[in-house]
Amino acid sequence: MMPHVVIVGCGFGGLEAVRALSTAAVEITLVDRTNHHLFQPLLYQVATAGLSAPAVSAPIRHTLRRQMKRGNLTILQAEVIGFDVATQRVLLDDDQALAYDHLIVAAGATHSYFGHDDWAAHAPGLKTLADAFTIRARVIGAFERAERCLDATQRDAWLTFVVIGAGPTGVEMAGTMAEIAQHTLPQEFRRIDSRRTHVVLLEGSDRVLGSFVPALSQRAREQLARLGVDVRTGCTVTGIDADGVTYETRSGAAAQHHRVASKTVIWAAGVAGAKLGQALAAGAGAMVDRAGRVIVKPDLSLTGHPEIAVIGDLASAMSHPDDPRQGKPKPVPGVSPAAKQMGRAAAANLLRRLRGAPTLPFRYIDHGNLATIGRKAAVVDLTVPGIGALRFSGYFAWLFWLFAHIYFLIGFRNRLIVMFDWAWAYWTYERSARVVAQPPSPPAA
Amino acid sequence: MMPHVVIVGCGFGGLEAVRALSTAAVEITLVDRTNHHLFQPLLYQVATAGLSAPAVSAPIRHTLRRQMKRGNLTILQAEVIGFDVATQRVLLDDDQALAYDHLIVAAGATHSYFGHDDWAAHAPGLKTLADAFTIRARVIGAFERAERCLDATQRDAWLTFVVIGAGPTGVEMAGTMAEIAQHTLPQEFRRIDSRRTHVVLLEGSDRVLGSFVPALSQRAREQLARLGVDVRTGCTVTGIDADGVTYETRSGAAAQHHRVASKTVIWAAGVAGAKLGQALAAGAGAMVDRAGRVIVKPDLSLTGHPEIAVIGDLASAMSHPDDPRQGKPKPVPGVSPAAKQMGRAAAANLLRRLRGAPTLPFRYIDHGNLATIGRKAAVVDLTVPGIGALRFSGYFAWLFWLFAHIYFLIGFRNRLIVMFDWAWAYWTYERSARVVAQPPSPPAA
Repeated sequence: MMPHVVIVGCGFGGLEAVRALSTAAVEITLVDRTNHHLFQPLLYQVATAGLSAPAVSAPIRHTLRRQMKRGNLTILQAEVIGFDVATQRVLLDDDQALAYDHLIVAAGATHSYFGHDDWAAHAPGLKTLADAFTIRARVIGAFERAERCLDATQRDAWLTFVVIGAGPTGVEMAGTMAEIAQHTLPQEFRRIDSRRTHVVLLEGSDRVLGSFVPALSQRAREQLARLGVDVRTGCTVTGIDADGVTYETRSGAAAQHHRVASKTVIWAAGVAGAKLGQALAAGAGAMVDRAGRVIVKPDLSLTGHPEIAVIGDLASAMSHPDDPRQGKPKPVPGVSPAAKQMGRAAAANLLRRLRGAPTLPFRYIDHGNLATIGRKAAVVDLTVPGIGALRFSGYFAWLFWLFAHIYFLIGFRNRLIVMFDWAWAYWTYERSARVVAQPPSPPAA
Repeated sequence: MMPHVVIVGCGFGGLEAVRALSTAAVEITLVDRTNHHLFQPLLYQVATAGLSAPAVSAPIRHTLRRQMKRGNLTILQAEVIGFDVATQRVLLDDDQALAYDHLIVAAGATHSYFGHDDWAAHAPGLKTLADAFTIRARVIGAFERAERCLDATQRDAWLTFVVIGAGPTGVEMAGTMAEIAQHTLPQEFRRIDSRRTHVVLLEGSDRVLGSFVPALSQRAREQLARLGVDVRTGCTVTGIDADGVTYETRSGAAAQHHRVASKTVIWAAGVAGAKLGQALAAGAGAMVDRAGRVIVKPDLSLTGHPEIAVIGDLASAMSHPDDPRQGKPKPVPGVSPAAKQMGRAAAANLLRRLRGAPTLPFRYIDHGNLATIGRKAAVVDLTVPGIGALRFSGYFAWLFWLFAHIYFLIGFRNRLIVMFDWAWAYWTYERSARVVAQPPSPPAA
């Protein structure tokens, strides 16, 4: 019988691992709790009504249909509730268990409220399609509520949007919301002026896009300001409720307390490894880092469990653990190229083990970093082999971002749809997905 | 001050009434509980994953932005909870009330379970985008559950789909589900053979598409059979639960009882006027018919309340109340052309009243009837002035249906998107919207 490989999660890491094993003499079972692979870098476009959900996601079965036809792959849509590493079994939500010879866990990350889970109800984060629909409904609905509102103070609160966290997602969300308020909606309301919308971007550190070099952070901040975003750095959020956000700033030893009245708050600040990682680590005797990610060995396996690999956003890995010439190892960032590289590396190590060869340490190849800010605004920080860093911002950075994202978007058809939607949006400022479904209609009496 | 016209509902009837008043010296307030106009004839495509929600719906504000700019229109997204006809006010869910001089109620219809509201949980109907998402998740999810299922009887129940009611919606749903099982999914599962899917279409009367002539019903039935749909007529449903449907048939005086084990049941049988119609009728002293629709005068107003008109699916109107030459008046059917015609007629009568002229009775112009069955299959029954009935079925009927629906679809952009999606689906059998969102992800601990 062929060795059975179970892969948990079909994000960038899991999908790449499945593909890397497509011709291997193994039997693969891929388990995901959804039926689709999500192109997460464009999820903010679904949340801000620029793209429909099918444009940024692909049914897993369709994506992998050729491999399934070849016969070494089974796909199950199921929730993994735990692991029994002693008997080598993955436990599913319907009391079934999958026995494995090799296990690759790529369960990803979720948002973390730093111990303030009560904030979740008031400040949704953005990880899944369902999250994106929640945010879309709130953002679009806020303008509707403002139009209905007869009280000026309340109306201002409906027209104030707070984004917490100025990483790539927060910057994209804030920039796009400003764009909607300034360009998409102005002619569509009678009582309110959507151009009076106030978009506040709160960041704890002293600059936006902290993973970029300071010069690009500065450019991003200027571009955000030009779009009308009120960027506030050095702000520590201390409370979120249904009516707004409180935060404090420090000058020297003294803390100042601030309040923004807002009915729509979006959380883009904290990310943590999926809970499944802790369950796995507890069972396998592995450690998790502060962000709840499983600490892996250089070859991405777990100490004492060479048959288990953890990859992608759930893994706490170092960039080049065995190669001191590249300088001090850094944590591998939670970005899609890193997840894909880990997927390929884990699959390659699995094949090495099958033929009795030693595994190799994972080395992260950093191609650079992109972030979009809004219409015609982005920052690009590329690492070009033999040349070094190539950094630019503005219109050309935005075009670069656009084509890079379309290129990597899964499926030929989706690329066409996204290109069409974006071309349309560029010329008309219209956002195609501005529909918000109501709850199911009740039956008539 | 200009007379204030309140229009409740932005379906085909309400939207047409708003447009017909675009240059009138009135102040219009349009109230809808959603933010979009829904192209309901294509909603089954959203439910069966052929089209994304934005492809069949348009934000009301965007659709009416030019009229809003001209300045006689305000749009409110709000739920109407009742009417005070004595003081001429529409009551909204946030304790606001809108005083009106003229009122047009176009609140539409919802599904009716004929007094069995407990069936709703097991057999969702299809009226709103949210309904379509519910059905999409159940249909796509059923195949996933079948793939996971280890028990053969249970697996068969997951692979059995029952559609109740063989009107246009039921026929479209059944035909499309058979198409998905036969053509879209066969290569995408490992353990099940989706071609073994059993689609049952249950109808109470003795033929499908009862609003067509018997010859076309017969053709439709043959086309359904060719697609693999198990059509059963003369079946009265007596129970629906989580595991299937019970129904009875009659031969002579004896009733036979039957049971279909199925995990996925769709309700396309009963339609009733929105509950709001009963509230309006009670307040205005009007009558409702058996289907809960408000009985209107020939000019679409209510007896004793010339300032109130009811139109579209919520109105119980006769086709030509004042014109005996056309034969016996028939009830106006609940189709979009009828709603549009009533919208225009109600607006025209409103303008007549404003200038002191007598109102005119509504006359329904029946252009015919179309229904699609599935890929390359449809029936068409056109009424051509001066010629009579033009009836055909099959491939050309399907092409006719296709272009008629694309033509009437709101918004230039949506037409392009739908054409592209359909051309793609035609050649690839792929269904673009097969993604099902999970509930929002919980925050990490």
